[in-house]
Amino acid sequence: MNIVRQNIERASAEVIAALGAAGVATVHEAQGRKGCLRPYMRPIWPGAQIAGSAVTISAPPGDNWMLHVAIEQLQEGDVLVLAPTSPCDNGYFGDLLATSAMARGCRGLVIEAGVRDVRDLAAMGFPVWSKAVSAEGTVKETLGSVNVPIVCAGQSIEAGDVIVADDDGVCVVPRASAPDVLEKARARLAAEEDKRARLAAGECGLDLYDMRGRLAEKGLKYV
Amino acid sequence: MNIVRQNIERASAEVIAALGAAGVATVHEAQGRKGCLRPYMRPIWPGAQIAGSAVTISAPPGDNWMLHVAIEQLQEGDVLVLAPTSPCDNGYFGDLLATSAMARGCRGLVIEAGVRDVRDLAAMGFPVWSKAVSAEGTVKETLGSVNVPIVCAGQSIEAGDVIVADDDGVCVVPRASAPDVLEKARARLAAEEDKRARLAAGECGLDLYDMRGRLAEKGLKYV
Amino acid sequence: MNIVRQNIERASAEVIAALGAAGVATVHEAQGRKGCLRPYMRPIWPGAQIAGSAVTISAPPGDNWMLHVAIEQLQEGDVLVLAPTSPCDNGYFGDLLATSAMARGCRGLVIEAGVRDVRDLAAMGFPVWSKAVSAEGTVKETLGSVNVPIVCAGQSIEAGDVIVADDDGVCVVPRASAPDVLEKARARLAAEEDKRARLAAGECGLDLYDMRGRLAEKGLKYV
Amino acid sequence: MNIVRQNIERASAEVIAALGAAGVATVHEAQGRKGCLRPYMRPIWPGAQIAGSAVTISAPPGDNWMLHVAIEQLQEGDVLVLAPTSPCDNGYFGDLLATSAMARGCRGLVIEAGVRDVRDLAAMGFPVWSKAVSAEGTVKETLGSVNVPIVCAGQSIEAGDVIVADDDGVCVVPRASAPDVLEKARARLAAEEDKRARLAAGECGLDLYDMRGRLAEKGLKYV
Amino acid sequence: MNIVRQNIERASAEVIAALGAAGVATVHEAQGRKGCLRPYMRPIWPGAQIAGSAVTISAPPGDNWMLHVAIEQLQEGDVLVLAPTSPCDNGYFGDLLATSAMARGCRGLVIEAGVRDVRDLAAMGFPVWSKAVSAEGTVKETLGSVNVPIVCAGQSIEAGDVIVADDDGVCVVPRASAPDVLEKARARLAAEEDKRARLAAGECGLDLYDMRGRLAEKGLKYV
Amino acid sequence: MNIVRQNIERASAEVIAALGAAGVATVHEAQGRKGCLRPYMRPIWPGAQIAGSAVTISAPPGDNWMLHVAIEQLQEGDVLVLAPTSPCDNGYFGDLLATSAMARGCRGLVIEAGVRDVRDLAAMGFPVWSKAVSAEGTVKETLGSVNVPIVCAGQSIEAGDVIVADDDGVCVVPRASAPDVLEKARARLAAEEDKRARLAAGECGLDLYDMRGRLAEKGLKYV
Repeated sequence: MNIVRQNIERASAEVIAALGAAGVATVHEAQGRKGCLRPYMRPIWPGAQIAGSAVTISAPPGDNWMLHVAIEQLQEGDVLVLAPTSPCDNGYFGDLLATSAMARGCRGLVIEAGVRDVRDLAAMGFPVWSKAVSAEGTVKETLGSVNVPIVCAGQSIEAGDVIVADDDGVCVVPRASAPDVLEKARARLAAEEDKRARLAAGECGLDLYDMRGRLAEKGLKYV
Repeated sequence: MNIVRQNIERASAEVIAALGAAGVATVHEAQGRKGCLRPYMRPIWPGAQIAGSAVTISAPPGDNWMLHVAIEQLQEGDVLVLAPTSPCDNGYFGDLLATSAMARGCRGLVIEAGVRDVRDLAAMGFPVWSKAVSAEGTVKETLGSVNVPIVCAGQSIEAGDVIVADDDGVCVVPRASAPDVLEKARARLAAEEDKRARLAAGECGLDLYDMRGRLAEKGLKYV
Repeated sequence: MNIVRQNIERASAEVIAALGAAGVATVHEAQGRKGCLRPYMRPIWPGAQIAGSAVTISAPPGDNWMLHVAIEQLQEGDVLVLAPTSPCDNGYFGDLLATSAMARGCRGLVIEAGVRDVRDLAAMGFPVWSKAVSAEGTVKETLGSVNVPIVCAGQSIEAGDVIVADDDGVCVVPRASAPDVLEKARARLAAEEDKRARLAAGECGLDLYDMRGRLAEKGLKYV
Repeated sequence: MNIVRQNIERASAEVIAALGAAGVATVHEAQGRKGCLRPYMRPIWPGAQIAGSAVTISAPPGDNWMLHVAIEQLQEGDVLVLAPTSPCDNGYFGDLLATSAMARGCRGLVIEAGVRDVRDLAAMGFPVWSKAVSAEGTVKETLGSVNVPIVCAGQSIEAGDVIVADDDGVCVVPRASAPDVLEKARARLAAEEDKRARLAAGECGLDLYDMRGRLAEKGLKYV
Repeated sequence: MNIVRQNIERASAEVIAALGAAGVATVHEAQGRKGCLRPYMRPIWPGAQIAGSAVTISAPPGDNWMLHVAIEQLQEGDVLVLAPTSPCDNGYFGDLLATSAMARGCRGLVIEAGVRDVRDLAAMGFPVWSKAVSAEGTVKETLGSVNVPIVCAGQSIEAGDVIVADDDGVCVVPRASAPDVLEKARARLAAEEDKRARLAAGECGLDLYDMRGRLAEKGLKYV
Repeated sequence: MNIVRQNIERASAEVIAALGAAGVATVHEAQGRKGCLRPYMRPIWPGAQIAGSAVTISAPPGDNWMLHVAIEQLQEGDVLVLAPTSPCDNGYFGDLLATSAMARGCRGLVIEAGVRDVRDLAAMGFPVWSKAVSAEGTVKETLGSVNVPIVCAGQSIEAGDVIVADDDGVCVVPRASAPDVLEKARARLAAEEDKRARLAAGECGLDLYDMRGRLAEKGLKYV
């Protein structure tokens, strides 16, 4: 059955903003090395760093109808996340849809398929993480669903989960655990400052992290 | 048999220029969602947008001899289009060949293989859409053909067909249908302006395109 | 057995610098079209052009422990080269390791796996050629080896071999043959200048390289 | 946190057996064209057709320790389902683990990675659907989890879900919906018999499915 | 525009049968090393060797409607050849469609996508060369075309061209050149017998093909 | 420079035969989880299990000339091992070359490219491990080398190294270490018998390998 869930819960705006500021690598580590989408999900232009609440889309291959449906569901601060039901690299999304999505508060698109009009999207400052860039068009013939659980680029994503994306890729944080992950991310960032200074001064990671004993115990031989 | 067709027909320069200005996504839609080369054909530097008449090259894997032959056949406004007879990612083309091609009026290269000297090519402003960047060299031992029909990145291309390429990829328009496709592209561009304004003002695509009835009829449920 | 070879021989700094200045495509041709790593090894930011002595790392999939071990072995002018023992696209390396490597004289990283913190690495000016960009983290549980022969992206590399890398990719030159390859690279560069000028003036490669007779002999037909 | 869930719910043995008899294609259609794992999941020997309850395993790349842990959790009629936390094609599983799993009632293995000893596994009649066949071994150093939700070959799978697998691949049916899917599968199979007979007699699908009107309405032209 | 061409020309049944008997490798060489579809097109069961006239299908991704249309156009001895308009590995074809196609004289299917019910298809003796085996179903919503020129797995194919397929893959022979290719294939087969006998007796290919002089001339050194 | 090394050292026939009997997975583990070629190297027919001394071939893409040269260098018990200098899936080898190789004592072919006439090769009992099956032919225009070090499917291989291949894939053992690896393989096989019996009797691997303590220490929780 094809459905559109209209009322979804979202994490707090403060938590989302702070996760976005922490960035993908830190957030991924903070939640126990979990949540990274596959690395073929690449930004179409460099430098964007966002976080937002997922409005999820399950769409048939070669059919972008549900994007129009999903855009109506957007709230300020949301991120569209589309997974085709089978692999497809068609260009589901271009400058007109981006215009519409931006007008409704959308912060970006994560799509395990293709996008087009990429120069326009960069000029508009609308960030996209996609599997492909493709001008190949789509139809509007077959239904999908909006705000249902999807699997996108190897990760389970539910509507309202927090999406964090930057030049390193995309990470998903389950809505309920977002505050806890943020706390761990902050601890991690705090700890990194001292390490960075010591490493920059030439101290060896082997000493900083006290690895020599364990390496010897495992049997590493220096020759 | 290996041949070089020396006299090929080309579309009018005006039509070619106008198709180039319309861009890949628009041209692809205007000819009925046809003609896009596979999306692994990526520009080696961003921002180029060209159109030109295809001078086609069928070349063996790992052998760039026919590029030298094809360059002699170039006229002002042509685009070189090379397909290897079996998949190959070697660097068939670099700055010396680009120097020669530019001197003879070439607007760019579309190659389902590799290129090299990409920093030089960018500095020269010579655009390339390729499957790979690779310094791996080629030999000059086995013949191919020039200006014969080829299949390049999933599309049939004949000599004299119009090649349109930009940051979204590459599209081919059969020479004979170029004027008709241009007319449809112009109609499409005209229609987009009004849509863009309405979407930017926050109107839903569902209303702008009058989709609600058909979605309901197909069975979409809002929950 | 897992080992760290501590004393490796390196080519002379002058030879290394000159090979770096010649660039990947020229060096590859100069050593007889050999040594290019597979073209999926791409720079994470454009414009870097380096050469250095390989400090090699053989690491398990998903485990970056040996990078910490290898960094201690770095000398000024070295390049880290990591090959996982089976394919892996995890992010083995980020800004903290880059800070440490730079502090110890490292010129860059060549890794047949993933890296992360790519925006930071670009800001630091630390060049990386990798198979992937990925925030997916690694563990420190299983030993590998440092300065042993490895196969990285299709090429055998020994510790102390000269690594040349630029926007065209990565090439390896065996340490012992580096002076000879440099000599051939210089001859090649000298010969290119005259060719470039003649091609820019519109002369055909077919004439410049005297190809017409051999093409005819092989049976190429002009129609 | 790494956990082993010891008590999982399973669907009834009758429902599981009947889904297995229906086969993957029928079950997939019956649940609304959902649940198929990606088609790179292939049987290592032809002819096996199974269904069972998923005992799920999330394992690090190159580490098969959790398989030993999972085997203890098996009940008669279960199927092991392993997804690495990042892509890996190592041989996690061979004849010794199969011996152990069979001794504990296991019906087969679905693994988005590699297996080895494939001739032995065929001789033992132990079916496996895998992404690769590989003799490349693994370590036992890093924890994963057992009977947690995983994403395997593009599908979300929970412990106790019904796995159906045959020569067409693998399909997952959520435990709770298994009886409903079975009912629809039976209806589908019943309807197919009549269709098969009419098609075998030469009747056109266009007539059998009454498609001519809708094709004409969409604009199909016979020329 | 979506069309069905109803009247296509076919090569003579004798020529087709003889090309089928010659097999893919011989036919491919006989027409000048041309016409092989990409090697990811694999038989779903071993041992079939067929030839027939192509009934071509251009179909959208994830939509098998046009197969029903195409089956009505089949004549005894035809082969269905389907190319999706963009890459797709869904299972477009199964046992019901095979029943229908066989009833109408079809010799096999070549499909750059997926098929399902593969065990049934093998039992029925219906041969298929496909890119994938997949139970993932398709819809019937969007038109395509039948008996138009297509690009399938890297080759241009027109309706009525001769398709030859065996365990080595698939080759297309343009209808008009089929008699000429057959003649060359026969010459090739005749010449092979003597060569096989001499090679089996231990004679070196270097002598049989008189290669030593040319190898020396090119510079091969024995050390 | 292109060379043919005519005198290569080989391991003893007894050691080679015993490694072949041990099989790929055991040999790979016995030499410390090293030496497996990438798993895309698959047998063209099931059931063959061989070992032999490598006669190595470095060949250009799309050119099989060096196979003819290499066959002359074969001794009874050798295995041909071909790596193209850049990736290529053409059919370098078919029934005539197999006839010649078998006449000269060859036990099989390992080729990181394509082969053809696969039905004939199976009928002849000539085993091949390849990356592809392809009828696409090759030329004889460009030299390569025979019995030089190559990288094949991710492994460095020298002439005279021992190649072991079976349904699990291919493994290389350096010639000098072959006796030592054999000894370890034998120890491994001996130890497996007891384990297999205990596992077949239902004993848990967790107990057999005494893993419970270490799992608990690493933090695994049973819930």
